[in-house]
Amino acid sequence: MSETQFTLPRGMKDIEPEEMIKRIWLADQIRQVLWSYGFQLLEPSPVENLETLEAKSGPGIRDEIYWFKDKAGRNLGLRFDLTVGMTRMIANRFDLPEPIKIGCIGGVWRYDEPQYARYRYHTQWDAEVYGVAEPTADAEIISLGSDILDKVGLKDHEVRVSNRKLAEGFLQSLGVRSQEELERLLRIIDGMGKKGPEQIEGELGRAGLSPDKVKRVMGFADIGGDADKVLPDLEKKLPKNDLISKGLQELSGTIDNVDSLGKRSKVQVDLRIVRGISYYDGTVFEAYDQAGEDVGAVFGGGRFDKLCRIYGKRDMPAT
Amino acid sequence: MSETQFTLPRGMKDIEPEEMIKRIWLADQIRQVLWSYGFQLLEPSPVENLETLEAKSGPGIRDEIYWFKDKAGRNLGLRFDLTVGMTRMIANRFDLPEPIKIGCIGGVWRYDEPQYARYRYHTQWDAEVYGVAEPTADAEIISLGSDILDKVGLKDHEVRVSNRKLAEGFLQSLGVRSQEELERLLRIIDGMGKKGPEQIEGELGRAGLSPDKVKRVMGFADIGGDADKVLPDLEKKLPKNDLISKGLQELSGTIDNVDSLGKRSKVQVDLRIVRGISYYDGTVFEAYDQAGEDVGAVFGGGRFDKLCRIYGKRDMPAT
Repeated sequence: MSETQFTLPRGMKDIEPEEMIKRIWLADQIRQVLWSYGFQLLEPSPVENLETLEAKSGPGIRDEIYWFKDKAGRNLGLRFDLTVGMTRMIANRFDLPEPIKIGCIGGVWRYDEPQYARYRYHTQWDAEVYGVAEPTADAEIISLGSDILDKVGLKDHEVRVSNRKLAEGFLQSLGVRSQEELERLLRIIDGMGKKGPEQIEGELGRAGLSPDKVKRVMGFADIGGDADKVLPDLEKKLPKNDLISKGLQELSGTIDNVDSLGKRSKVQVDLRIVRGISYYDGTVFEAYDQAGEDVGAVFGGGRFDKLCRIYGKRDMPAT
Repeated sequence: MSETQFTLPRGMKDIEPEEMIKRIWLADQIRQVLWSYGFQLLEPSPVENLETLEAKSGPGIRDEIYWFKDKAGRNLGLRFDLTVGMTRMIANRFDLPEPIKIGCIGGVWRYDEPQYARYRYHTQWDAEVYGVAEPTADAEIISLGSDILDKVGLKDHEVRVSNRKLAEGFLQSLGVRSQEELERLLRIIDGMGKKGPEQIEGELGRAGLSPDKVKRVMGFADIGGDADKVLPDLEKKLPKNDLISKGLQELSGTIDNVDSLGKRSKVQVDLRIVRGISYYDGTVFEAYDQAGEDVGAVFGGGRFDKLCRIYGKRDMPAT
């Protein structure tokens, strides 16, 4: 009789007891902070219609997620983040008083190439404010995220903040016109934290930028540091257009509100922060742990005022 | 511009905040009881190779679960219960001291026909003891389940206990020989709690039993009640064969151990309890809430001593 070894699919893993107990503790801490900020917890369905998942990110998302036909021939997909489902839930509800502050802890699936300590299924936490256009909401999410890191023991962290309109307005001033080219360049800027300058310069050049423009992008992305030092000069360092003016206003509004919440010392301005995902359209942020080994951003997010429109019948600002 | 309505796939639902807060509380209570009994928590992967899922239940399971080919052509499936993954995890681990007492709370997917309050994704709790052949383990799981019901407010419950060997031995004595026929009849007996006697008699007749045998099966299934009243006469009421003798011994051993744990008053003998799933092979039980509306069994389980052999390289009793 042949001995069959039952293995796990590529990129999947079991949670062993030692890890499970840490996860239960972590979820508990996160929930306590979410509740203390007045967020309600919910959980969108793990399985969505494929068209719902594509509405946010386009048909290209098919390559990066698990999707399949069910027995009735419907195209379904496993959720790849929590924002899609949460926004779909909220966008069609006209009965809820705004602001709507909701959070979730749940698993998401991505058909990535598995890497060291990266799996095709992982757990995320998520907090969203719907219905507030003012930067108070962005500051609240930044403060909430910072409190979660404090509570789970990552006290030595820094939240790097920028505004997507600054990068987009800057790229417009360089003559970038098509959405495709814009997104390609944003993805290169998004990779700057992980790669050396030579590599980034090469990528920008291959994306069609002249050596002069490559230099200007590198200069743009170099801007960062303490908000008190960076903000006063920022307008002078950047070209002038409507998008940049709006971005500057939103960025300083967010920093002011972070200040009111007593979190100024945790926050740095960093114009490299653009977030890879195309639906962000305002304030964006990523948190990094300064004490432990470099694991990349420990949380990230931003404003996505246009996403509700896609899923529902109304516009609703959201972060 | 056409207005697209993004709906959920059939049988799926979102968890709204009012329900979420109850679920979080419930999971917390369950975990506390599991820990108090010395169970460790873990979680098997939500996605398994299809062959792992089929190993337990045969290729017929394909009709009842979500399965699909991934981009590399592998057959994968979403877990339909927690026992499969937990047993796969444990069966190949030779380093763990026995008994192994593990529990899990997690979502499972089934491609059922959606019904009122039944969805294609739901959350289960699960506790398993591996490595104990004695009825102490079955009694421990029964007591644990009863304590969970007490803790979540379902104090007025009853755990109905039987042994799969009794029903199988009884059906053997009626001349049932093939595994297929056996499983068909067990599924009919399993449905007795939900259907009237006329309906059950009709199903047994259509399954090929003579009127006399139908009557005898109905008589067998009618046996139940308080253990003190049922057990002394039980041997006389049943035909004699090895399977029945073994079943009687296991059933009274389980009841004795439930008694030692102070839970005798919660337990009733009920020979209709056989559990629908084919891998159970010893003590089986289902709990019912007596106070609320009839929602069927609120938990159920049993012994599956042969399942570890399928997944691993060793035999290991389990419940």
